[in-house]
Amino acid sequence: MRALTVLAGQPDSLTVVDVPEPEPGPNELLVEGLAVGVCGTDREIAAAEYGEAPPGEDRLIIGHESLGRVMTAPEGSGFQPGDQVVGVVRRPDPVPCGACAQGSFDMCRNGRYTERGIKGINGYASQRWTVPVDYAIAVPAELGELAILVEPASVLAKAWDQVQLVGSRSWFEPRTVLVTGAGPIGLLAAMFGAQRGMDVHVLDRVTEGLKPQLVAELGATYHSEGIAELARHLEPDVVIEATGAPSIVGEAMTITGPYGIVCVTGVSAPGKTTPVDLGAINREIVLDNDVVIGSVNANRGHYATAAQALAAADPAWLTKLISRRVRLADYAAAFEPQDGDVKVVITL
Amino acid sequence: MRALTVLAGQPDSLTVVDVPEPEPGPNELLVEGLAVGVCGTDREIAAAEYGEAPPGEDRLIIGHESLGRVMTAPEGSGFQPGDQVVGVVRRPDPVPCGACAQGSFDMCRNGRYTERGIKGINGYASQRWTVPVDYAIAVPAELGELAILVEPASVLAKAWDQVQLVGSRSWFEPRTVLVTGAGPIGLLAAMFGAQRGMDVHVLDRVTEGLKPQLVAELGATYHSEGIAELARHLEPDVVIEATGAPSIVGEAMTITGPYGIVCVTGVSAPGKTTPVDLGAINREIVLDNDVVIGSVNANRGHYATAAQALAAADPAWLTKLISRRVRLADYAAAFEPQDGDVKVVITL
Repeated sequence: MRALTVLAGQPDSLTVVDVPEPEPGPNELLVEGLAVGVCGTDREIAAAEYGEAPPGEDRLIIGHESLGRVMTAPEGSGFQPGDQVVGVVRRPDPVPCGACAQGSFDMCRNGRYTERGIKGINGYASQRWTVPVDYAIAVPAELGELAILVEPASVLAKAWDQVQLVGSRSWFEPRTVLVTGAGPIGLLAAMFGAQRGMDVHVLDRVTEGLKPQLVAELGATYHSEGIAELARHLEPDVVIEATGAPSIVGEAMTITGPYGIVCVTGVSAPGKTTPVDLGAINREIVLDNDVVIGSVNANRGHYATAAQALAAADPAWLTKLISRRVRLADYAAAFEPQDGDVKVVITL
Repeated sequence: MRALTVLAGQPDSLTVVDVPEPEPGPNELLVEGLAVGVCGTDREIAAAEYGEAPPGEDRLIIGHESLGRVMTAPEGSGFQPGDQVVGVVRRPDPVPCGACAQGSFDMCRNGRYTERGIKGINGYASQRWTVPVDYAIAVPAELGELAILVEPASVLAKAWDQVQLVGSRSWFEPRTVLVTGAGPIGLLAAMFGAQRGMDVHVLDRVTEGLKPQLVAELGATYHSEGIAELARHLEPDVVIEATGAPSIVGEAMTITGPYGIVCVTGVSAPGKTTPVDLGAINREIVLDNDVVIGSVNANRGHYATAAQALAAADPAWLTKLISRRVRLADYAAAFEPQDGDVKVVITL
């Protein structure tokens, strides 16, 4: 069968190759791969900035935003052939840390986790794949191909969960959320905010096209001015930061009102210093009882929450989020950003 | 009677003046003032960088770290003449926000709180003062004059409470804490860490004298190298930042291991930019699921926790924390920093 792979650590090695058919183990599903989504991490892996092949192998099958259809399932697993499933990305080490032992492998402390398509274990960009029953998420049939959004949405399900858990340490009735960045992560963050009935604001530098339209269709407010400008008339209770851009991150940390919560989800590139008034940032965080939360990855519960949230969303809106579909043979096109891209999907 | 006052907003106006004797209201204690502690906020008020007189008045009686002895108490209040008490600093607005309505006035959202000796209400640096029963904290008699440390300790009781509340959102068994700054706040932070049985490290630039000695007496480890140097061999689970120095704050945000919690308590001076790799800071916060918590002030529960923690501490150690005592008439000396100062107290 065909699979999209890289030679881990080798730039320009992304290619489709023939790989052996996977053999499901006793507690595993055999799944027909339908599609994978492409995100920034995939591009980092293709550029050899990230990514680790399975032990003893040269090639890593990439793909962590998955969607497939069950071909065979162990009896009593609760899965049936034909069910649509998404595979979980991260798996704890066989010798788990305290967090992993409780199923919170997204909060792993020892760093010995693996991540499908990313770190030490093959991903989902293949025509067939297997997955342990415990790491498969059944997705509502009515979502159809939109279920490819479950994995990115799980990242936001976790981020919002963190905001709620940290916010609940005192009285917490947040009304206004600012989302910085209108890529797939930002737009899904805004969708969760709208589902919570909040006054949602989204900031991006793009001034026209699909992004402002998708924001407006959520009933949210789109902003394309600078964040410092925005801070003059907006004081959100919550910020979901989804750009990773240092200039945005610094302003995001101070734009909130008292008891503000800033959840940062964007993986920045390090190595570049800029002039920052860290005293002003720190002073405001202290005097306002503000919190900055880093959030990455998701656990099983977040995938389930994500599937529910997507099922509750307008399918027409979600359909527009998938702005481009590319066949496996044309994989290279999926890795070349185009104007108007939101989520690019490779069909298998 | 005599009271230490400033003309709010006017530098060099700190002076002892005669003020009318206070009259206790129906639910108030009349208290003989024994002592006030002097902290950075008092120095900011004396320098007219901060501070607000009561409505319609020019002078603000300063002093928010209080200790007094009850002279008269309403019947049924639970207080008796002779009881030692500490007054709470912050009070909610009569029209409270959601947090204040729950007694979490340390988390006030509308900013309309008052703070005794700081913002809109007279402080405790007078020979007699009154306090509503609900804002008086009974302190264990055995603490004696050491109870002047209850207010600064309440700030750390809150900070540690925040660390615990935020940490408890997932598996949390922190073992190592780094405290940055060995002033009264840092040393009390270290005391709480030691009482929790943690491996406590304290960083300060001073290389000898009382501070290293007080840290050693807690069974903690003292460091005077740079924090970047320290980061090479220490990866704490928790940081309590008590310097407010931007260079320390930036490093503190990245020195933790996975799921690190940095509680910032130092009120920095804003207005100075330095080159900062905010991308590296943000990346680490995201990928490690780290949290930065700002913590200021304290509510009634934190004062009670602080009094208990001080009662459980070694009195000889606490005694050394009060490094200098100055009479009210010599107030100016209390505002001139001297080598070896930790906590300076004005006796009334």
